[in-house]
Amino acid sequence: MYKKIDDRDIEYLRSFIPEGRILVHDEISHDYAHDELGGIEVKPDVLIYVLSTEEVSKIMKYAYDNEIPIVARGSGTDLVGAAVALEGGIMICTKRMNHILELDETNLTITVEPGVLLMELQAYVEERDLFYPPDPGEKSATIGGNISTNAGGMRAVKYGVTRDYVRGLTVVLPDGSIQHLGGKVVKNSSGYDLKDLVIGSEGTLCVITEAILKLLPKPDFSVSMLLPFLTMEKAIEVVPEILKSKTSLTAIEYMSLDTIISAEEFLGKKFPDTNYAAYILLTFDGNNMAEIESEYTKVASLCIEKGAIDGYFVDTDERKKSVWNARGAFLEAIKASTDKMDECDVVVPKSRVADFIKYTHEVAEITGLRIPSFGHAGDGNLHIYLCKDNLEEETWQKKADTAFELLYARAREYGGMVSGEHGIGYAKKPYLVKQVGDRQIELMQSIKKVFDPKNILNPGKVC
Amino acid sequence: MYKKIDDRDIEYLRSFIPEGRILVHDEISHDYAHDELGGIEVKPDVLIYVLSTEEVSKIMKYAYDNEIPIVARGSGTDLVGAAVALEGGIMICTKRMNHILELDETNLTITVEPGVLLMELQAYVEERDLFYPPDPGEKSATIGGNISTNAGGMRAVKYGVTRDYVRGLTVVLPDGSIQHLGGKVVKNSSGYDLKDLVIGSEGTLCVITEAILKLLPKPDFSVSMLLPFLTMEKAIEVVPEILKSKTSLTAIEYMSLDTIISAEEFLGKKFPDTNYAAYILLTFDGNNMAEIESEYTKVASLCIEKGAIDGYFVDTDERKKSVWNARGAFLEAIKASTDKMDECDVVVPKSRVADFIKYTHEVAEITGLRIPSFGHAGDGNLHIYLCKDNLEEETWQKKADTAFELLYARAREYGGMVSGEHGIGYAKKPYLVKQVGDRQIELMQSIKKVFDPKNILNPGKVC
Repeated sequence: MYKKIDDRDIEYLRSFIPEGRILVHDEISHDYAHDELGGIEVKPDVLIYVLSTEEVSKIMKYAYDNEIPIVARGSGTDLVGAAVALEGGIMICTKRMNHILELDETNLTITVEPGVLLMELQAYVEERDLFYPPDPGEKSATIGGNISTNAGGMRAVKYGVTRDYVRGLTVVLPDGSIQHLGGKVVKNSSGYDLKDLVIGSEGTLCVITEAILKLLPKPDFSVSMLLPFLTMEKAIEVVPEILKSKTSLTAIEYMSLDTIISAEEFLGKKFPDTNYAAYILLTFDGNNMAEIESEYTKVASLCIEKGAIDGYFVDTDERKKSVWNARGAFLEAIKASTDKMDECDVVVPKSRVADFIKYTHEVAEITGLRIPSFGHAGDGNLHIYLCKDNLEEETWQKKADTAFELLYARAREYGGMVSGEHGIGYAKKPYLVKQVGDRQIELMQSIKKVFDPKNILNPGKVC
Repeated sequence: MYKKIDDRDIEYLRSFIPEGRILVHDEISHDYAHDELGGIEVKPDVLIYVLSTEEVSKIMKYAYDNEIPIVARGSGTDLVGAAVALEGGIMICTKRMNHILELDETNLTITVEPGVLLMELQAYVEERDLFYPPDPGEKSATIGGNISTNAGGMRAVKYGVTRDYVRGLTVVLPDGSIQHLGGKVVKNSSGYDLKDLVIGSEGTLCVITEAILKLLPKPDFSVSMLLPFLTMEKAIEVVPEILKSKTSLTAIEYMSLDTIISAEEFLGKKFPDTNYAAYILLTFDGNNMAEIESEYTKVASLCIEKGAIDGYFVDTDERKKSVWNARGAFLEAIKASTDKMDECDVVVPKSRVADFIKYTHEVAEITGLRIPSFGHAGDGNLHIYLCKDNLEEETWQKKADTAFELLYARAREYGGMVSGEHGIGYAKKPYLVKQVGDRQIELMQSIKKVFDPKNILNPGKVC
């Protein structure tokens, strides 16, 4: 169906991409065959490190004219196969398009190339007393990837998700046409919102080659508190109470002792406290320390009243490092604890977080699988991991299928969604259909055809 | 091309819509032939006051099967002809679908029917110490209308626009299918973002019959200050300085003396001060009065340093009423001051607001038209009015065309957009094409076809 890459195609691509930026067949590292989770592995035929919008346009036009599949990839940190070249063909890697193009301190925007890493962007703006609020756990993801999945992260409770910080995009359509969507403007009611359609479309509608992001002034103070509980039930039952207290928290993360122990083992570093079964990590920020103090005092009292054993400030550099490094290593640590795993990134209304986490324990009992989880209790987005733990492949597949069916069914029942921030990619397509129904899938497929009538761009993903 | 409504169609519609909720031909008031600006007038053949999603679905399915054009309308307060039945046919009015369905204080969401008025929603939540931040000037617009144009309003500087507060929608597609988009969830990365595509699509893709909106806790304090300046230039030049000061303002509105005088005459009520040529109205809000005080002291000092003559608190009930009533009446007052007018709702990057307002004065000189303006200086969205003032129709048309060409060309040059919050409707279509180019218009037209292959829903609008 697609044209297979041949020597003439490679010759053409080499005519304008210099050596060192184009690799073919066996020259391509196996790393580019899979994503972070590695659920599926296919190698592209050609890998190009692109440097500019114009270069992306030229490659895309050629792929379109010749019906060659093409996939854009940033750091490849995704978990649902979205950045895997299922049909082979060309992979364009945006990692070297990693320049910050403009910081506009009047409009409070920053214009970046898609290959800038989240951690690079955060460091750059924070040095200048500015703030890019979206804060997904994976700091080495690219901004292009964050936009393509509408990544959310830990501060979504207070600050919203990536979508809320994208003011404008430069994109290359599958036929090579370069388009500018949005801009530095704050409001916009000028035709259909193509920009928001592209955000979260996992590289299936066009390739993002530039982004204008909204910044905020950096809050002067940020305070975190760690609260231990005797049981996970007690810890998570406090979450809806905190949400009802009308305090303005930046983050509410929950973590179980087993996840913390995995992280300690993985990092070879101690967590400040491992005496209790479950922990809640709260963050408050703002410009007024008195206000922050009054907020955390109120929330901490509430938590202690509802069963928290204690409340530690995560204030010294050492303690901050140990807590945040552990938090950042949860995914890697769980991955290292089992030979294979799969993940469920559901989001449910905040009021159902406690119920849903309890349900994951039931599913673990029903299936006999180990199902550690952690996540953003404050915004309803949970990261739930099904671990294979040396089970036979067939048994594991069956048990995992059963667990996924149960978890997604319960999420639907609670008014939740298949994915909060990791996307649909290749792995979650069947669950998206069950979630939104055939009619919405039809609408999505037809929109895909509008942008990509030959289905050359990241085929086999989302819908 | 479309089927003309005949007696059999009316008989069918009457079979499930009781008398009093269905009007035909001459029974329909002329009010339903035009919008607030009245730039174009066409009466629908049938007007139905719908009560439920199911009813909308049944009517839409019939219109679709029989190729009858159909338009949904709320309060009809728009300014670009979006709610006018250009091709006749059926108009469904959502005004009686005006129930608040659920207030969820844990998830901080409110579920409403589309005919709830903005002022009703604001009053309802504020009585309960909650807050719906979007605050367009026209408080008698419906929430369905606000969502359909992605209305912005005065608090967008700090709080964002309507889009940022829509968590979920129930919509009826042109073929009658009922779909639920989004939900009560905070994050979502589950397939293409159909919800954001519908927001701002001006009733051309589907009809919104229910909305889940995000609320915030109500800020405890809100303080406004009025600052007079000797000239408009001096007033608007202070805006970028305020923006750079890293204070967190809720609103920065600018108003010229002539607009204020028009409002005084229109309302028959005095404005607190009419001794100066231009005014800036600042609003600060939050839960900590000390922080607000430190912010307004800083900003007021900056303004006085840059040319403000004085700074009055808008604090007594009487003063609040006189300032906000005047602000709310600007559009009506300008309308009453001329026999005919047209409007330009551009949005430019915040840094270019001052330059753009100065340019409207140039355009007034070039064309000889009176061009009063007011608007949201803090977010770059300006409301600019071209007044006919008894000119001959032909001369007026020519001058208005010249003025629009100049204004939109300058907005494009500044990286601005055709519409910040009023939409494209019927009146601004040519300028949208110039703005985004043929390729994006093609994408929009193809998306329209995906939702509405027979082009029955609000035909002739947007793209």
